[in-house]
Amino acid sequence: MCTSICYTSTDHYFGRNLDYEIDYGQKVIIVPRNYVFNYRDMPAQKSHYAFIGVSVVNDNYPLLCDAINEKGLGIAGLNFQGPGYYFPQIKGKKNIASFELIPYLLSNCESTAEVKEILADASISNVSFSSNYPAADLHWILSDKTGKSIVVESTKSGLHVYDNPVNVLTNNPEFPSQLTKLSDYVDVTPSNPKNTLVPNVDVNIYSRGLGTHHLPGGMDSSSRFVKAAFVLSHAPKGKDEVENVTNYFHILHSVEQAKGLDEVENNRYEYTMYTDCMNLDKGILYFTTYDNNRINAVDMYKENLDAEDLICYDLFKKQDINYIS
Amino acid sequence: MCTSICYTSTDHYFGRNLDYEIDYGQKVIIVPRNYVFNYRDMPAQKSHYAFIGVSVVNDNYPLLCDAINEKGLGIAGLNFQGPGYYFPQIKGKKNIASFELIPYLLSNCESTAEVKEILADASISNVSFSSNYPAADLHWILSDKTGKSIVVESTKSGLHVYDNPVNVLTNNPEFPSQLTKLSDYVDVTPSNPKNTLVPNVDVNIYSRGLGTHHLPGGMDSSSRFVKAAFVLSHAPKGKDEVENVTNYFHILHSVEQAKGLDEVENNRYEYTMYTDCMNLDKGILYFTTYDNNRINAVDMYKENLDAEDLICYDLFKKQDINYIS
Amino acid sequence: MCTSICYTSTDHYFGRNLDYEIDYGQKVIIVPRNYVFNYRDMPAQKSHYAFIGVSVVNDNYPLLCDAINEKGLGIAGLNFQGPGYYFPQIKGKKNIASFELIPYLLSNCESTAEVKEILADASISNVSFSSNYPAADLHWILSDKTGKSIVVESTKSGLHVYDNPVNVLTNNPEFPSQLTKLSDYVDVTPSNPKNTLVPNVDVNIYSRGLGTHHLPGGMDSSSRFVKAAFVLSHAPKGKDEVENVTNYFHILHSVEQAKGLDEVENNRYEYTMYTDCMNLDKGILYFTTYDNNRINAVDMYKENLDAEDLICYDLFKKQDINYIS
Amino acid sequence: MCTSICYTSTDHYFGRNLDYEIDYGQKVIIVPRNYVFNYRDMPAQKSHYAFIGVSVVNDNYPLLCDAINEKGLGIAGLNFQGPGYYFPQIKGKKNIASFELIPYLLSNCESTAEVKEILADASISNVSFSSNYPAADLHWILSDKTGKSIVVESTKSGLHVYDNPVNVLTNNPEFPSQLTKLSDYVDVTPSNPKNTLVPNVDVNIYSRGLGTHHLPGGMDSSSRFVKAAFVLSHAPKGKDEVENVTNYFHILHSVEQAKGLDEVENNRYEYTMYTDCMNLDKGILYFTTYDNNRINAVDMYKENLDAEDLICYDLFKKQDINYIS
Repeated sequence: MCTSICYTSTDHYFGRNLDYEIDYGQKVIIVPRNYVFNYRDMPAQKSHYAFIGVSVVNDNYPLLCDAINEKGLGIAGLNFQGPGYYFPQIKGKKNIASFELIPYLLSNCESTAEVKEILADASISNVSFSSNYPAADLHWILSDKTGKSIVVESTKSGLHVYDNPVNVLTNNPEFPSQLTKLSDYVDVTPSNPKNTLVPNVDVNIYSRGLGTHHLPGGMDSSSRFVKAAFVLSHAPKGKDEVENVTNYFHILHSVEQAKGLDEVENNRYEYTMYTDCMNLDKGILYFTTYDNNRINAVDMYKENLDAEDLICYDLFKKQDINYIS
Repeated sequence: MCTSICYTSTDHYFGRNLDYEIDYGQKVIIVPRNYVFNYRDMPAQKSHYAFIGVSVVNDNYPLLCDAINEKGLGIAGLNFQGPGYYFPQIKGKKNIASFELIPYLLSNCESTAEVKEILADASISNVSFSSNYPAADLHWILSDKTGKSIVVESTKSGLHVYDNPVNVLTNNPEFPSQLTKLSDYVDVTPSNPKNTLVPNVDVNIYSRGLGTHHLPGGMDSSSRFVKAAFVLSHAPKGKDEVENVTNYFHILHSVEQAKGLDEVENNRYEYTMYTDCMNLDKGILYFTTYDNNRINAVDMYKENLDAEDLICYDLFKKQDINYIS
Repeated sequence: MCTSICYTSTDHYFGRNLDYEIDYGQKVIIVPRNYVFNYRDMPAQKSHYAFIGVSVVNDNYPLLCDAINEKGLGIAGLNFQGPGYYFPQIKGKKNIASFELIPYLLSNCESTAEVKEILADASISNVSFSSNYPAADLHWILSDKTGKSIVVESTKSGLHVYDNPVNVLTNNPEFPSQLTKLSDYVDVTPSNPKNTLVPNVDVNIYSRGLGTHHLPGGMDSSSRFVKAAFVLSHAPKGKDEVENVTNYFHILHSVEQAKGLDEVENNRYEYTMYTDCMNLDKGILYFTTYDNNRINAVDMYKENLDAEDLICYDLFKKQDINYIS
Repeated sequence: MCTSICYTSTDHYFGRNLDYEIDYGQKVIIVPRNYVFNYRDMPAQKSHYAFIGVSVVNDNYPLLCDAINEKGLGIAGLNFQGPGYYFPQIKGKKNIASFELIPYLLSNCESTAEVKEILADASISNVSFSSNYPAADLHWILSDKTGKSIVVESTKSGLHVYDNPVNVLTNNPEFPSQLTKLSDYVDVTPSNPKNTLVPNVDVNIYSRGLGTHHLPGGMDSSSRFVKAAFVLSHAPKGKDEVENVTNYFHILHSVEQAKGLDEVENNRYEYTMYTDCMNLDKGILYFTTYDNNRINAVDMYKENLDAEDLICYDLFKKQDINYIS
């Protein structure tokens, strides 16, 4: 499935691991201010904030996985199959199709506070983009320049917006249960553990790092949630952009899914297809992919953000090895 | 501490994560065939197999962390403080100082089988390289083109050579205990788990990957040993060199230590300083470092292997980002 | 806190561990059919089903911990501090004070199906028994002669009635989250585990019972829930009453809290004060206490169930050792 | 398999859970001072210390599971299949057959210090009691009135005597590895855990006892070793004999194996057949069995200890329920 974080140093860095078994040909895209959005149940929007992110592009429409806008609001959609539920269009509500949620919020909001307002009378509708693209069950993490995050979940009991104090999201179960899970690992520590098991016995602490022994290392969403929360919470702050970006990728790579570990059907394995890192303050998107360890970067401000057409870059590239000799 | 693996696809790939808190200025080095080794308790050696690896270089002497020779034998030394013990020089034994073990074996052996023979009458002596470089407590993993590995440990009970069926080594406790530890996690699986807990109850398998939920995710040597063994064992085989190298780095990066997680003393943290991958068949050393995600490569056969002087390349480099726009 | 189960063999056995740090002087009591209940917001009830259980008795009123009635319905109240929430009296609802819930349901219901009906228009009100006995935050497990159980929880979002397919209840978090937790341990098995960790390696299964290695053994409510569900699910059926009762006590004693393990405040420890086992079919209550391993038994049908006054027996007794020589 | 402890309060209490799937008809027996022992490779012994314990009796010979002598030395033999190894008789050594070890040491030693001396030139020989009773692979825990314990293991590398600082023994792997395992759980605590996972986040500690969440609860020997060590280490001291005996049984019952949880072959399950508790100071043996929760007691000083014949009492009894009404 996926893991998303918001890491704060001098700037704020938002993004995710996309874990899946099928490559949908995602691209890095920039949606400039005058690209027109025709919504299913809301008026068309001819101008809006520009944004940059990772997206499938179909019929010139951006089916976004994750993106940030020029105001520093970031959103990522993560698999939420099971608890996730979308509603038929409801009269009197702002009906946002699930695939419209990212572009709609990035087009119109500067912050998670504005998102909360705009979602107060909204419902996520079960309208598909097309019969080829049925609505995927998702929930969303949103972060902004305050360094704080929220989670949006649409379940049978309605649309929920939760504050997210750990700045991490993975997948199931529902977000409050994920938070509760942290309690089971609350004593994990970077420090050497104290002996409270058998206090009067001299226990041989045979390894460094034993304070982290109970940290889960699985591919499942709970394991990734707990581990990413720990790694993010203890990550150092870099002294410049490159060091921050470096730290960020180490956090997400610590919950990366290598190939072969998560069999979703016979001989088909989910793995971390890409990892991106978007600087909410500077509008730069950095990424690595499974097949290319080198960090690539796209700066949205290097493009004409007043354009009308989507701007696309290849995401999936060959391993770019530097042969020294 | 460290993690070392040997990954077999069409070729064989050997190397390690070096986890530590101090940068000793390691370099990638090539030791050509005619570099002279003066041993402490054995005759000097004027010519030998060439090798490539990562090393601290002091007084023009290679204090090797890990290396492979032109015959496809690889060795890595990993921290073994606690159980590790070196002996005073013993008459009638081949006394190899701990810092000499890697160059001596790579100079003289083609395979782990030859290493076993050569160590049959050997003892690891407690002679230091210099007062500035006291003998570090280490144990060693060795692999060759058969794709099989052995572990060499010198403890108070003597010099032990163990077959290593999992092709992984981390640190403490002694190797047989590490192998035993695998039993506690033996049911971890890439597949969806079956419900044997409460067989007549319909349990909601809420996440993909729950078959790996009990995999440990800590920084300690046991956690890394179990996780690396699982990831290595289930890693796919690549169809070419680049894909194999890619797979290899994902295996070792899955047990990478990010900064901030393993506090070895007040505000000082161990982390994965570099990861290398040496093709035992082709003599190419690939590496990434904490500060540079891009893979770099050095091919020993591009140099004059009949030379007499060490050939060095920088290991620690700046993050090499590809700015697309 | 507490653990409650319903074990089915030829008969059905219901009861609990009461884990706490304060002895409230609980008694085994029989509430005969003509003992008068004066409810706070409902009409008084002069006759009803008889029941037997464990109770604090205050001012001749039974503040029941757990009990079963002559129709084979059983209820136990378990600590639910945190999520638990009681409401002010609501017009148009049947307002049942939390301390009235057990007597009211046992007085009037034959089965959990009837309980569901009766609770459809009910609310648990926050009325205390007295200023000395503030309303404890509880949730309830109910079982009947079908061998099936339900859970009743009153939280801020209202009154919830859940089917309980595992026939176990402990404490926090809310019941659906406890059920979800089972997924994390779903592969625990009484059988020898198969090696899926490193499939081509001959792993030494060094101990019997390794299929249960990941079973949690803590005092916390999640650990007890998972372990009790496993032990109950795999418990054999006895061939007679004594063997069934014996099996039952082994199930609950497997999650017993010994003294010294669960420090609730400085030097004050929660422990399993008593364990009871009520035969839903025969109206017999068996019990052990921390201080007395011997099983004691009270048969409600040995008393006059048409009486008007509570019938009490001592619960907490001295260790009753059989000195053979 | 089995778990053995030595619990110290005002007196010292030694004994074990015997976990197995076959009832060999064990009895409580007293071996009086003048019962003659004919050893296989040592001179016969006509008088010795008296002892009391649990034993299979075959041909009037006590095949002891565990026992204590009148001097306060206790020994229990626990399954050690795998690492356990007995030797052919060795010239110049005191060759003690494995089934002779308990009677020989109890006949001749007052303390574990004396045991260490007597074993200095001993070897455990692979002589069977009879073809019907092949030598079981065992290791032994011994405790005395100092409250300290040792472990005796005979493996291929020879006879080992280890100090046992935790006063617990289960089964495999070898004792030093079991001790090392404690490190993985060293931070388990009866107290509420502190949040070091995500230090700046307010984590909801949803349950009491979360400091023990990582305690293992399996039937395997590692789980029982760690849990028993924790429970024993934190057990309170009683104020009199009955309270001490009560505490003792709660410690061992916390690692009891209920039926159905440990399948040793198809539909055959190991379980805790009996639990005994021997007061090293007073010579009283207390016991419970799977089928009888009531504690029974035999005081060796109530018998004529100068007799020549074994004195036997039934161990396996029916459930002894106290029917109050």
